[in-house]
Amino acid sequence: MSEWMKNVRKTEPYIPGEQPKADNVIKLNTNENPYPPAPGVKKACREINTDKFRLYPDPDVTELTAVIADYYGVNESEVFVGVGSDDVLAMSFLTFFNSDKPILFPDITYSFYDVWAELFGIPYKRPALKDDFRIDINDYMEPNGGIVIANPNAPTSLYEPVSDIEKIIAKNSSSVVIVDEAYIDFGGESVLPLIHRYDNLLVVRTFSKSRSMAGIRIGFAMGNPLLINALKDVKSSFNSYTMNMPAIILGIEAVKDDVYFKNTLEKIINTRNRVKAELEEIGFMVLDSCSNFLFASHENIPARVIFEKLRSENIYVRYFDKPRIDNYIRITVGTDSEMDAFIEALKKIKKSVDIC
Amino acid sequence: MSEWMKNVRKTEPYIPGEQPKADNVIKLNTNENPYPPAPGVKKACREINTDKFRLYPDPDVTELTAVIADYYGVNESEVFVGVGSDDVLAMSFLTFFNSDKPILFPDITYSFYDVWAELFGIPYKRPALKDDFRIDINDYMEPNGGIVIANPNAPTSLYEPVSDIEKIIAKNSSSVVIVDEAYIDFGGESVLPLIHRYDNLLVVRTFSKSRSMAGIRIGFAMGNPLLINALKDVKSSFNSYTMNMPAIILGIEAVKDDVYFKNTLEKIINTRNRVKAELEEIGFMVLDSCSNFLFASHENIPARVIFEKLRSENIYVRYFDKPRIDNYIRITVGTDSEMDAFIEALKKIKKSVDIC
Repeated sequence: MSEWMKNVRKTEPYIPGEQPKADNVIKLNTNENPYPPAPGVKKACREINTDKFRLYPDPDVTELTAVIADYYGVNESEVFVGVGSDDVLAMSFLTFFNSDKPILFPDITYSFYDVWAELFGIPYKRPALKDDFRIDINDYMEPNGGIVIANPNAPTSLYEPVSDIEKIIAKNSSSVVIVDEAYIDFGGESVLPLIHRYDNLLVVRTFSKSRSMAGIRIGFAMGNPLLINALKDVKSSFNSYTMNMPAIILGIEAVKDDVYFKNTLEKIINTRNRVKAELEEIGFMVLDSCSNFLFASHENIPARVIFEKLRSENIYVRYFDKPRIDNYIRITVGTDSEMDAFIEALKKIKKSVDIC
Repeated sequence: MSEWMKNVRKTEPYIPGEQPKADNVIKLNTNENPYPPAPGVKKACREINTDKFRLYPDPDVTELTAVIADYYGVNESEVFVGVGSDDVLAMSFLTFFNSDKPILFPDITYSFYDVWAELFGIPYKRPALKDDFRIDINDYMEPNGGIVIANPNAPTSLYEPVSDIEKIIAKNSSSVVIVDEAYIDFGGESVLPLIHRYDNLLVVRTFSKSRSMAGIRIGFAMGNPLLINALKDVKSSFNSYTMNMPAIILGIEAVKDDVYFKNTLEKIINTRNRVKAELEEIGFMVLDSCSNFLFASHENIPARVIFEKLRSENIYVRYFDKPRIDNYIRITVGTDSEMDAFIEALKKIKKSVDIC
């Protein structure tokens, strides 16, 4: 072993859902939006002044920040933009979680939280969700170095009411509480208005799901200007220019078209509710989703078997080989025709298993 | 003060050169390329399938990595791609510099190195460059936790021969040596072939200068697969998808057109050499540049005065108010007509000062 390897940081990287390169697959495994971005995105992409690529982009991402602030009715000084919500969350962990006390997040949640904690050497504790996968807010009332709550939660799809989240925020005024609202546009009320009441609340959002912009990498945080300035300082100590010109220009267009945005959300929510009922008809227990995915367990076919059989039919869903959730599959809501094909494939699997 | 602020990471952010928003300025302050990216970049931008933006980009940046590897004659496993060389360097500091011993870099060099060291709590030592701003390689022969050498160096523009850099690499087999070759395309020989001889050598490059792609944010590192894998693991523990789809697609086009690339370099080098001579004629001492900028000091007009007077004429150069270099200006090489205007402005400044 080369001697320099002794000083290499040890990591257990986050493993994202598979990104199959073939085109003939039904991809329901990474919670992408089945519909393209707003039409204005295409138009803007065609019109970009590519000669300007020779220049550095705006390090302060001023225009996109202004458009986001305007849309959400907050001040520009209350918005921080990053390379997807993962970048925003990574920067937030690095910025705010420097206590000796452990940070807290549920045992079942977005599996990047413990990866960041490990990467930055942040102590952490994972209170167990209740048997019904709901948060027990009493678990978040002890001394801590910070709190992270995904709401709606992933991969469970469950939403906790603002009143409960507020109790956690109010009780923990001496640590930063991050509410990761990656899926909030698909259902549930946001805690966003609370940023004006609690200076320790940071709300994190993404363009990757509801705005169909996963490929462009835009996420943002909203909170008190003290929080935002601290984040900006750390970001500027890491990389002055994280957002490239296309991301800034196309991101603005994605926010502008609110009619398209709302229509797309409505379609996905309708499909989700319809598919949930159909899954229940063929023997699945499906959690009440407030997101763009469903978390489901079958009464007699093991989740791993379903996952593998679907995969052999070129239908990709997500399976987590982890305690408590290893008999569930997570299914992103696709287009209606994709979901029809998915349900058909499940019926075929059910039939083949019933025969065995 | 809110109590959570006690646990906020303290930083002194890097201050990039000013990015004036007006269009009528001559911008010679951030070492951008005065020529647009290769024509294929524009064409590819017009043809991007924007519907695909709804999907996550390739987390492994496979295609762009392959094109870079092919161009530089290395293996794909020897290439790591990031959001500009700043992202690559930040990730490298986080990955490789975890020793108790200080890392070493010159007192006068790219001013982001100490910002990263401070951000990540890495001890560091800055051996002074010699009076002629050249490196004394003997300063890099003591026990250390890593070494960073910019070659050509910024803001001095000076190039150190491969033979000297190799001595540093060879002597320090137990720590990682990063050679930051952001400006190597403008002159000098690369240490790249040495990555096959020394597993502790990481060579970092950028698309921002020679490839006119500062606005797209692409940088890359080349080194032994052990180094590259360690970097990939840390990157994947920070953000699975750092490179967005436009960056990947347009980056490939920027590499493909080698004729355009070489022509652009030749133009910039010719302009640089011509302007150096003209500066000397009007009383400047100009260092021997192997980069796309000049570092110059006037025999009787203070650098700060020149900087401010140029700025009032809408000509932006870079001035560093730092020990040893506070009587120098750094001038990015622009187009020939931009440089003519710059020289004219200097002559005017000289005249006005001579009269006083």
